[in-house]
Amino acid sequence: MLSERLTFYSQLTDLKLAELLEEGSKAPILTESMGYSVFSGGKRIRPSLCMAACELCGGTAEDALFAACSLELIHTYSLIHDDLPAMDNDDMRRGKPSNHKAFGEANAILAGDGLQALAFFALSLCTEKTVLEYVAKGAFEMVMGQSLDVNSGGDVSLLRQLQDYKTGALFRAAVSAGAACANATTDQIAALIRFADAYGLLFQITDDILDFEGESSVLGKTAGKDAEEGKTTFVTVYGLDTAKEYAKQYAHEAREAVYQANADAPFFTELISYTLTRKS
Amino acid sequence: MLSERLTFYSQLTDLKLAELLEEGSKAPILTESMGYSVFSGGKRIRPSLCMAACELCGGTAEDALFAACSLELIHTYSLIHDDLPAMDNDDMRRGKPSNHKAFGEANAILAGDGLQALAFFALSLCTEKTVLEYVAKGAFEMVMGQSLDVNSGGDVSLLRQLQDYKTGALFRAAVSAGAACANATTDQIAALIRFADAYGLLFQITDDILDFEGESSVLGKTAGKDAEEGKTTFVTVYGLDTAKEYAKQYAHEAREAVYQANADAPFFTELISYTLTRKS
Repeated sequence: MLSERLTFYSQLTDLKLAELLEEGSKAPILTESMGYSVFSGGKRIRPSLCMAACELCGGTAEDALFAACSLELIHTYSLIHDDLPAMDNDDMRRGKPSNHKAFGEANAILAGDGLQALAFFALSLCTEKTVLEYVAKGAFEMVMGQSLDVNSGGDVSLLRQLQDYKTGALFRAAVSAGAACANATTDQIAALIRFADAYGLLFQITDDILDFEGESSVLGKTAGKDAEEGKTTFVTVYGLDTAKEYAKQYAHEAREAVYQANADAPFFTELISYTLTRKS
Repeated sequence: MLSERLTFYSQLTDLKLAELLEEGSKAPILTESMGYSVFSGGKRIRPSLCMAACELCGGTAEDALFAACSLELIHTYSLIHDDLPAMDNDDMRRGKPSNHKAFGEANAILAGDGLQALAFFALSLCTEKTVLEYVAKGAFEMVMGQSLDVNSGGDVSLLRQLQDYKTGALFRAAVSAGAACANATTDQIAALIRFADAYGLLFQITDDILDFEGESSVLGKTAGKDAEEGKTTFVTVYGLDTAKEYAKQYAHEAREAVYQANADAPFFTELISYTLTRKS
């Protein structure tokens, strides 16, 4: 069920993303650099959540397609800008050179800027007006999270707020925009936002655990790269065991919340279980 | 008339921009760095064009206020990213340190990203749905223009297309969004877009002329800094005299176009004359 639906959502998303990128055809290097990162093996989690939320509330996946694409475009731009030398300075992303390594810094900055603009252009093709507010708020909060991260100086008390903005904001935007595309009730949207809050934390904690365990096994050390670099993650702050307990707790909260939106939600319950036990 | 209206539009814009920036209050450095560039003495030309277009088509300035603010936020983000070391590498902007000089590169990248998101959040508060398409298209074309500029290698044949995107796109967005906020007719919007096309070129050519003459007088040379740096501008390509002739021609086209939207348009006709003879 889960992997079939993810494949279906991804294929829908990819076709529409390719169409949207053609908007930039008169600026070939911009289009190429945007496409390079948009089609680099992303899992399309945010568009999938958006379309699944739309279906959960009685719409079709297609009803939420423009909103879904806008979320993937925003997510992709954020990765490009995150990788820049002035930010995380990452040379590689998803197994290939990061955007600025492939196209140079100026083009990478512009690819990110262009993708954000294209995201909102995609939303202009979406008939449901309230979607814009959800997505714009998510995009803005995501930047707030990045800013807290850049300037927190490892302040542990900011960890949850920071992750809530960095990861949670786009998940919230995804489900609320998707639900809005199905004319969902206020109660359904509120329940899905509670799901996104919990799922965002689950997603981030399991990401931190994977990073820690991956680095530990490679380095043959008990502390991972994050700890060595002084990064503030759920694992470096709470330790591995407590982080795993938190992951279970947030998975439980996510299940409860989605049940309140719709008791029949196999995609969501399977996604939560998958994320809790994911290996990549 | 002109300066009174510009003051009125600027004051309206500034009040709303200050309100909008409060959205970021939980990320204080982001808010501070965004505000630093938003309130740095910009002339508010784009919001003024937007609100004046709304009035020209029978609306009030306030009807177009969110659209107007979105354009100024997009313009401001583009200046911050333009100034980055990987782009134009400018240390100063409007007589004070550029954003990355004041806040560091990472914060400047995020200030730009946040301002673009905030621009579209502002639009979510605007009741007129078609405005989003105009503004998003303008924001995207502006990035296309930047990309052509970065990658053109001084290709003269691209000059007009490039400037049309870089400067014209946001002017087009400003007048069409403003007109849409007044429920303007298709003919009025088309005429205002023709005005923006011509006015954008007029604005850019007079900017190039000012740069050239300013640098020439400072350097005591006949060729300005742009020519020395190999930049492609209307002056370096066509020479000063021909550039001045083009400016007059585009001013004429801009006047004709605005007349077709509304014969009684003192703000626009005075703005065109002012721009043609501007000294800064």
